[in-house]
Amino acid sequence: MSVLIKNGRVITAGNDCIADIYIEGEVIKAIGQNLQVKAEKEIDAAGMLVFPGGIDPHVHLAMPFMGTFSSDDYETGTRAALYGGTTTVIDFVLQTQGDSLKAALTDWQSRATGTAVGDYSFHMAVTDFNENTKAEIKQMIEEEGISSFKTFMAYKGALMIDDRQMFGLMSEVKKQGGMVTTHATNGDVIDFLVAKHRAEGKLSPLYHYLSQPEVTEAEASNRFAQMAGYTGCPAYIVHLTCEGALNAVRDAGRRNYQVFAETCIQYLILDASLYENDFEGAKWVMSPPLREKKDQAALWAGINQGLLQIVATDHCPFMWEQKLMGKNDFSKIPNGHPAIENRIELLYSEGVAKGKISLNKFVEVSSTNAAKIFGMFPRKGTIAVGSDADIVIFDPNGKHTLSAATHHMNVDYSGYEGWEVSGKVKTVLLRGKVAIDGDECLVEKGNGQFIKRSKVSNIV
Amino acid sequence: MSVLIKNGRVITAGNDCIADIYIEGEVIKAIGQNLQVKAEKEIDAAGMLVFPGGIDPHVHLAMPFMGTFSSDDYETGTRAALYGGTTTVIDFVLQTQGDSLKAALTDWQSRATGTAVGDYSFHMAVTDFNENTKAEIKQMIEEEGISSFKTFMAYKGALMIDDRQMFGLMSEVKKQGGMVTTHATNGDVIDFLVAKHRAEGKLSPLYHYLSQPEVTEAEASNRFAQMAGYTGCPAYIVHLTCEGALNAVRDAGRRNYQVFAETCIQYLILDASLYENDFEGAKWVMSPPLREKKDQAALWAGINQGLLQIVATDHCPFMWEQKLMGKNDFSKIPNGHPAIENRIELLYSEGVAKGKISLNKFVEVSSTNAAKIFGMFPRKGTIAVGSDADIVIFDPNGKHTLSAATHHMNVDYSGYEGWEVSGKVKTVLLRGKVAIDGDECLVEKGNGQFIKRSKVSNIV
Amino acid sequence: MSVLIKNGRVITAGNDCIADIYIEGEVIKAIGQNLQVKAEKEIDAAGMLVFPGGIDPHVHLAMPFMGTFSSDDYETGTRAALYGGTTTVIDFVLQTQGDSLKAALTDWQSRATGTAVGDYSFHMAVTDFNENTKAEIKQMIEEEGISSFKTFMAYKGALMIDDRQMFGLMSEVKKQGGMVTTHATNGDVIDFLVAKHRAEGKLSPLYHYLSQPEVTEAEASNRFAQMAGYTGCPAYIVHLTCEGALNAVRDAGRRNYQVFAETCIQYLILDASLYENDFEGAKWVMSPPLREKKDQAALWAGINQGLLQIVATDHCPFMWEQKLMGKNDFSKIPNGHPAIENRIELLYSEGVAKGKISLNKFVEVSSTNAAKIFGMFPRKGTIAVGSDADIVIFDPNGKHTLSAATHHMNVDYSGYEGWEVSGKVKTVLLRGKVAIDGDECLVEKGNGQFIKRSKVSNIV
Amino acid sequence: MSVLIKNGRVITAGNDCIADIYIEGEVIKAIGQNLQVKAEKEIDAAGMLVFPGGIDPHVHLAMPFMGTFSSDDYETGTRAALYGGTTTVIDFVLQTQGDSLKAALTDWQSRATGTAVGDYSFHMAVTDFNENTKAEIKQMIEEEGISSFKTFMAYKGALMIDDRQMFGLMSEVKKQGGMVTTHATNGDVIDFLVAKHRAEGKLSPLYHYLSQPEVTEAEASNRFAQMAGYTGCPAYIVHLTCEGALNAVRDAGRRNYQVFAETCIQYLILDASLYENDFEGAKWVMSPPLREKKDQAALWAGINQGLLQIVATDHCPFMWEQKLMGKNDFSKIPNGHPAIENRIELLYSEGVAKGKISLNKFVEVSSTNAAKIFGMFPRKGTIAVGSDADIVIFDPNGKHTLSAATHHMNVDYSGYEGWEVSGKVKTVLLRGKVAIDGDECLVEKGNGQFIKRSKVSNIV
Repeated sequence: MSVLIKNGRVITAGNDCIADIYIEGEVIKAIGQNLQVKAEKEIDAAGMLVFPGGIDPHVHLAMPFMGTFSSDDYETGTRAALYGGTTTVIDFVLQTQGDSLKAALTDWQSRATGTAVGDYSFHMAVTDFNENTKAEIKQMIEEEGISSFKTFMAYKGALMIDDRQMFGLMSEVKKQGGMVTTHATNGDVIDFLVAKHRAEGKLSPLYHYLSQPEVTEAEASNRFAQMAGYTGCPAYIVHLTCEGALNAVRDAGRRNYQVFAETCIQYLILDASLYENDFEGAKWVMSPPLREKKDQAALWAGINQGLLQIVATDHCPFMWEQKLMGKNDFSKIPNGHPAIENRIELLYSEGVAKGKISLNKFVEVSSTNAAKIFGMFPRKGTIAVGSDADIVIFDPNGKHTLSAATHHMNVDYSGYEGWEVSGKVKTVLLRGKVAIDGDECLVEKGNGQFIKRSKVSNIV
Repeated sequence: MSVLIKNGRVITAGNDCIADIYIEGEVIKAIGQNLQVKAEKEIDAAGMLVFPGGIDPHVHLAMPFMGTFSSDDYETGTRAALYGGTTTVIDFVLQTQGDSLKAALTDWQSRATGTAVGDYSFHMAVTDFNENTKAEIKQMIEEEGISSFKTFMAYKGALMIDDRQMFGLMSEVKKQGGMVTTHATNGDVIDFLVAKHRAEGKLSPLYHYLSQPEVTEAEASNRFAQMAGYTGCPAYIVHLTCEGALNAVRDAGRRNYQVFAETCIQYLILDASLYENDFEGAKWVMSPPLREKKDQAALWAGINQGLLQIVATDHCPFMWEQKLMGKNDFSKIPNGHPAIENRIELLYSEGVAKGKISLNKFVEVSSTNAAKIFGMFPRKGTIAVGSDADIVIFDPNGKHTLSAATHHMNVDYSGYEGWEVSGKVKTVLLRGKVAIDGDECLVEKGNGQFIKRSKVSNIV
Repeated sequence: MSVLIKNGRVITAGNDCIADIYIEGEVIKAIGQNLQVKAEKEIDAAGMLVFPGGIDPHVHLAMPFMGTFSSDDYETGTRAALYGGTTTVIDFVLQTQGDSLKAALTDWQSRATGTAVGDYSFHMAVTDFNENTKAEIKQMIEEEGISSFKTFMAYKGALMIDDRQMFGLMSEVKKQGGMVTTHATNGDVIDFLVAKHRAEGKLSPLYHYLSQPEVTEAEASNRFAQMAGYTGCPAYIVHLTCEGALNAVRDAGRRNYQVFAETCIQYLILDASLYENDFEGAKWVMSPPLREKKDQAALWAGINQGLLQIVATDHCPFMWEQKLMGKNDFSKIPNGHPAIENRIELLYSEGVAKGKISLNKFVEVSSTNAAKIFGMFPRKGTIAVGSDADIVIFDPNGKHTLSAATHHMNVDYSGYEGWEVSGKVKTVLLRGKVAIDGDECLVEKGNGQFIKRSKVSNIV
Repeated sequence: MSVLIKNGRVITAGNDCIADIYIEGEVIKAIGQNLQVKAEKEIDAAGMLVFPGGIDPHVHLAMPFMGTFSSDDYETGTRAALYGGTTTVIDFVLQTQGDSLKAALTDWQSRATGTAVGDYSFHMAVTDFNENTKAEIKQMIEEEGISSFKTFMAYKGALMIDDRQMFGLMSEVKKQGGMVTTHATNGDVIDFLVAKHRAEGKLSPLYHYLSQPEVTEAEASNRFAQMAGYTGCPAYIVHLTCEGALNAVRDAGRRNYQVFAETCIQYLILDASLYENDFEGAKWVMSPPLREKKDQAALWAGINQGLLQIVATDHCPFMWEQKLMGKNDFSKIPNGHPAIENRIELLYSEGVAKGKISLNKFVEVSSTNAAKIFGMFPRKGTIAVGSDADIVIFDPNGKHTLSAATHHMNVDYSGYEGWEVSGKVKTVLLRGKVAIDGDECLVEKGNGQFIKRSKVSNIV
């Protein structure tokens, strides 16, 4: 199969040109002006932006959590991602404490294989670092193609590792050529505040927010950055939300440390005032919670300053009925919100269209940097000869309104109901196939491939 | 004329692929695998790196300074640049205090036009900001294609403007869509220290260094960053050399300011111990002077942290005889050193080959970012369809030794005599023409074009 | 003459005890429980706080400024100070550019000698540092007892010195054992903004505020601190008002620099919202202007963190008629506000009574530190054997209301009209004499002495 | 009993005068010039410095640790303290995990009561914070006079509490009017490094040092400061040793937090090069370990900047035979070194005599601040009417040499063997009694009293 995309404005992290793109099979074969090739399919992209398929390195599909599962599985989740211009996602395998990494991987594979519509990879969440786990690191990287190891500095007794384990993990991961990522927050302090609020009968979603003050994230970000800097292990902070945590990353730079950091689209555009409307706030109960306006300003600036390399989602949807599990106790509300389908359009609309970031930066933070940092580059993350033909054709003038009524995520509310966005994903190719064409998804369950990733570095 | 470069490893800021590049006339027409085109000239680049022609945004050619002229003129300087893989340079027009910007531009054009071998553009150095000058800013940007305005925070009475002028300039330049750049140092303090050292009979090159302590640069960098942040004017610090100044840029980020900054190759790899050998140190008498090892470490880290976007040279060579003007008084040594030809190879050898920066970052800081920041992108700074075919074919295994005996700069010493570098510029194309082929320069005096630049922004 | 103050709670920077104080002539002879001495006068201080007479190191009496004179002269000003518990003030002699320090001193002496009611000393404001001035520094310190040299980083053409002069002054002052103090602000930037606002017809007091944004002070504070740190000269920032400037002092500490800093009572308790009421705001037109609530919080914290050693006033009153000179142009409003009489009571009421600072800290910042930093310790600034008997007897329960109707300053409005304060100055002794007894002043014009000060250090 | 100390130069935190001091019973009754009183004993202090008895708030006497006991018990330790001019010490009661605070207190009392020669108090080290412990906090403060609660962020499984316990403790302690102090270090990371070094056969004292890199202390200091700031609990970091930790305290100030911090005399004057001489280094095996020269400079500056309020010792001596327990494994060397007797003289000699700190600051950091911060002021920590007559008469010209041969601590080596100091403790009074007179100790075992302490605050 061959495809020719004609006359689009092709944007990558480093380029911006009007060109044709010629695709043969799964990969891009040529980029040129008026390419004289015959293709089985031609797409006219005049007036359109053409950029690399988005990569969302932070999603949770069919994740067992708090006694339930996130409502998007690999099929619905990756399909919604495709609708939103995201062609590859990275999910998190969660080790069960006391069990092996391999066992967890097998479990996750069982849910993903043959199910995913779009491409996917896995981070391995290490929740129990010990001699056995240590021995599996090399295998994960070299055999399974999983080179990033997620840690939790919260959820003690379930997911959290302590700093000794963290230091040990970093030492081993550095040695084997991987990266350690973290949910940087002081879980102990949060546990204290949650218990305190519950004891005081403060049970609404607002107290979810008030149980995770900025300082919990700022402190842990500094702690993680210092450990990473000292061990030299490539390191990455997931879902950084606030000025205090950003300053921790910034200040680590004074010691010549490089720590990568990701924020999520919601932290750039929503704020904690949403928690004030009683249980309605449950829609945005996630960890970390939404922050303040001043944090949004800091995050946008942080993107342009190069401190934040990636804008992800931490997509983890739950049906309203699931959210209601915490009707009378915020600590029982399943954490997470749906965004996998909205990320690219929101980032374009709020970032590029409003002049906050450039087009090149938009591609960098929505796709290229994730590919580079997580070892999928240059196969993924760019439009280049030899790269997978994961391509979004985007109408910069396509104004429309977000709504649960029209989205494709398996969740019965939208965190952005009624939000008007400038710019619309029109066509999406995944490895050379047209996956999305307007409102239609042309690929099936099982179309998605697992992407093995290579070793990583702390320079990109 | 058409050219086909075959099978090279094509590196841009955002890409890394094996591909052919097809060029027609001055621009790149297509990039692809096994491109089926006929070209008048074919170049086999197998095993070679192929990257965008370097852009050096900080050079001084035929510059009148301290009663003499820098020894490279537009011909020798841009030719040497080409030999070193740099296809475009940006020089500085210096307004004479009391006279107009236009008059200075005319003067500089008289030396450059018809002389340059490689492409060039101009920054306009505003040394006297007043109502007349203010009125010229718009014209410079819109008619002359000069959108960056250099200022000096030193050289009082000759080049320096005070902070009121700076603030006024920033306000006007922001309004008109340009950028203000600066030599950030506290000229007053330096003047004091120079006078003090001279009065004490401390006259060797070492005292050039000791007259410009880190604090002079750190202070002024902070001052400039704060003014830029407050006015919102896109801003850029030239030749940043030290940890203190880098921290000023870093800390400006805490207020959500974005200030671009450039370092130069010499500050990354040389240090102030070179001033200890009596008059030999005159080779590296430049302003700011070389710094300490700890500053080198900070600068390399700053590149990876995104705080330093560009590695330039501040190329400003003087013959040894000219340097001898200051034999008995460091303050009379013409400031500057030759590097225009060595930048790319040194940066590759010391940066990429030693694992300090990635290949993509190498292209970013040697070419792409300069094009983006200074309004030449995407015409310059990348390998993309429609871009000028300014291309370096580079042998990553080409070990060789730098020497005045073999360099092409018009200066009778090398700042890097005997330095062994890994990697060699083999072939250089400028706007589609093979300009350098091994040891030969195939283009003539006058081949270089003036590049008009567009308006700029503080996001790139 | 001998005096015995009985049973007061005696507070110094380092003590807190119930004791009698026995005074003979001008000095304290003994402090003890139930001292068995006969005194000509006994004062019962049971239930009262007894602390050292305040020192206000920042006042402007009978100062020629903007074509007029500040409305308190040495008589009315120092008398009002006594009423408010301040027994010693330090005024500023202003060198006329082109003239000598000595000439200015003579001029100031002519206004102060035989006029002051309370004790006073002088800072020497160096507005023109040159070889002649340099030669006078030693004489000022050793012969005149003036060891602190004020500089202005604003008011170009009238008072401002440039950084070369500053560096030169610091070098000389350090050598001779003095201290350099500064009005830290970027005068050039302010000049630009004032001109801009005037050109735009923005002429109300609000634009006085908007012409001196925080960044002007933050920048200059950093600049001054860096110069001081590098030269090693003892250094002091007057009237520091904002978080940005405080952070500059804080950050200078990272380089192991010690820079002393003073804030003024108004910056701790008033904020810029006062400028919003049209010309009423002229009452608080001073430089720097009042700041934001967040700055107040930073300043109180800065006092407890030891970053701010002194709370002064910058007392510089003007009659309302004088303020009206700027009715139609904020830049013509004489800068300054009256506070010399209110400082101690406001600081006690807003600081101690509200739990923001301790009693010991209150004494430190209102008296002791000024004596130590400016070379009057232990003669002034404490209650100790051999020290001048400058003593305040203070009723901590004496609630009352501030008003122009009742204050003793020669100015027809109060910046604190209607302000209720907790605590009242009851009796004040100056060098052993009861100077204030309730509503009466018992000492005459000419009673005040000039206090020679000793060399200073950057450790206290 | 009455004593009259005549003509000394009396120094307190806030005073400096020549005066007589008259003592009746245990307290100071009067301070004056030529006091006309009859005393049973007169001491001529002409030419001497007279300052408040030192307070060392960080000592470990007869402490059970690592299977042995620190070699100074309450008798030898407090007697040596007196010889060195320290009249009050604060020791640490260590709760046994699983047991109550009260039980530990009883245990400690059994060793101290009737044994101590000098005065003492206790900090309560909370090693197991739970509902029971929580209930004891109020009692400790209000009934036992123990208002400071020590925590360990290291020694997991024995002494360490986690951050949830820390946050809970801070919340309760704030409520009850106490203070939380901490050994700020990342125990988890240290455990990892110790295990690693042991596994690698790196067993000399040098590896004790290398197992506790600066980052462990810097990180934990930031963590603790953030928690303290957020809870508002008065907080204090014990034995802060390094620039990184000091910067954590400094940066906490940016959020307007006040965190008190103590360093110890050894960190100001010794450095890690002592660990290079094989097992000899065991003399200085303590936690944290000695640091670098750059840290010494930062600490001295930190004292003058007000960031470090106290210079203590962490006195915890072990006989050489005890140190030899770790001959073959650094992790078995009992941690601690003897300094209780040397602190005052070393601080005077290295600090005051060398011009690094002032006399007033010397008194502040060796005595007054400890009294203020820990709730013993003004009974202890100053020379004032009504205060305990704890007084040191010090010969500023008394040069002598430190040695194990002459010291009074119960330990057979000195950490300062052969060190020449300027200044010598001559006479020491404790609550009005002459305790030390030259080489003689005139008070007996059991003379020391337990000092109940009051509630504390985060302003002093």
